Amino acid sequence: MLYIIGLGLGDEKDITCKGLEAVKKADRVYLEEYTSILTVGKRALEAFYERDDLIVADRELVEQGDEILRDADSADVAFLVVGDPFGATTHSDLALRAKNANIRCRIIHNASIMNAIGCTGLQLYSFGETVSIPFWTETWQPDSFYDKIIGNLSRGLHTLCLLDIKVKEPTLESLTRKKREYEPPRFMTVNQAASQLLQIIEQKQSTELSTEKRLSAESVCIAVSRVGSSDQKMVSTTLKQMTDVEMGPPLHSLVIAGTLHPLEQEYISEFAL
Amino acid sequence: MLYIIGLGLGDEKDITCKGLEAVKKADRVYLEEYTSILTVGKRALEAFYERDDLIVADRELVEQGDEILRDADSADVAFLVVGDPFGATTHSDLALRAKNANIRCRIIHNASIMNAIGCTGLQLYSFGETVSIPFWTETWQPDSFYDKIIGNLSRGLHTLCLLDIKVKEPTLESLTRKKREYEPPRFMTVNQAASQLLQIIEQKQSTELSTEKRLSAESVCIAVSRVGSSDQKMVSTTLKQMTDVEMGPPLHSLVIAGTLHPLEQEYISEFAL
Repeated sequence: MLYIIGLGLGDEKDITCKGLEAVKKADRVYLEEYTSILTVGKRALEAFYERDDLIVADRELVEQGDEILRDADSADVAFLVVGDPFGATTHSDLALRAKNANIRCRIIHNASIMNAIGCTGLQLYSFGETVSIPFWTETWQPDSFYDKIIGNLSRGLHTLCLLDIKVKEPTLESLTRKKREYEPPRFMTVNQAASQLLQIIEQKQSTELSTEKRLSAESVCIAVSRVGSSDQKMVSTTLKQMTDVEMGPPLHSLVIAGTLHPLEQEYISEFAL
Repeated sequence: MLYIIGLGLGDEKDITCKGLEAVKKADRVYLEEYTSILTVGKRALEAFYERDDLIVADRELVEQGDEILRDADSADVAFLVVGDPFGATTHSDLALRAKNANIRCRIIHNASIMNAIGCTGLQLYSFGETVSIPFWTETWQPDSFYDKIIGNLSRGLHTLCLLDIKVKEPTLESLTRKKREYEPPRFMTVNQAASQLLQIIEQKQSTELSTEKRLSAESVCIAVSRVGSSDQKMVSTTLKQMTDVEMGPPLHSLVIAGTLHPLEQEYISEFAL
């Protein structure tokens, strides 16, 4: 049996009792740490699970898949994912591989940022499609997320922006070598995300005629960091001010507010800058 | 301290370890059972928590709020919610009341249908705004959810439809009496939801000119029931067929598929009718 188990968003205690039970009895336990992170690392998880044999699964191992699914028709294999199991495409792919190999697969759900963002007091029903904001490079500056935000705003909907995370990315130089070297992990801050959004606004401004429901430096945003942990932080302010807000250690997420209901307005004013 | 604790979606073991710890040490524990239900009832929860004093909180008690917040500045009060704490508006309202009364409030997140719907293999990034489908009566047949589904479809996005639940609704006759009487609980099935959608399609067809990306009897839908429990069920088929599919006991949810990615297509074909 393959168990794909969500760890939730905070620390080692955010696993469900059902998840913990499966982890304790599994023959092998893999920990996926490249699409998201908790506020604690492998050691804290091992201590809480009372086992010292967690295997960190990087992107290569997961996408290749065979090692994880080895003998899983007879053995119990647990695959641990920060948040909910199906937050990332990779994991439904793993479930599909298991099915195709006649391995039974059990999903143990947990909170993900897609629903925990309700902690801002913004109604989940009033969110449009979620976007991802990637790190820009000098030569690669995609902005398709901007049009999606505008699409949501035009319907009065909020947008959850998931911010890029780079963990165990091979350095460009090492790609051609046998021995891979990795860049230090990077996590996009709300400051970087706001700054990229402001750059796009500046470029697009001239062609944008309607001033209604457009994204501007004065648009209301909410920053959240380390959701679910004891030092979670939330700040609401303008997009412009968001370039300067200090949200502390990762992970950060950003919400662009659509039309605010009075109750939502009251809620976010509690943590206005 | 007020703890608002998500119970997740399946049974008593879907609470997080952090949540269970808070329940065990709380002075009073309230269980909200009117916006959603687990596959098990109060008794199973009490057995698992090793305490026999859970207080069922109905809508009146929660919306009035004072009883729940009583002495919560000095005592520990736990308020249990199926799914994630902020799935329903009522609960952010409770958190706000706590703040205004200077009562500290801690949210313990869990899975909700808003993210667990990823179990269908449809990417959460490809969902537009979520809609609620209410029970129709002879004189009250709102259809605003239809326009939202069309709005999502026109952008290629999937729609999660949350289906109505009526628990402890006063009978019309008893509203004017001192002693309230309650209707038996009702949970909308995917059959009822599909049937209401087909009726709307029939009424709107004549005025709808574009055949592209419109909702029709042949649109691909996915039904899910009892997500997160051991007898969870998923079926993909057309909207028309969906009026006939047997999904078993509550809760049911329905997804109207937008543009399907090949991997999504492959995933849902595994449970096609």
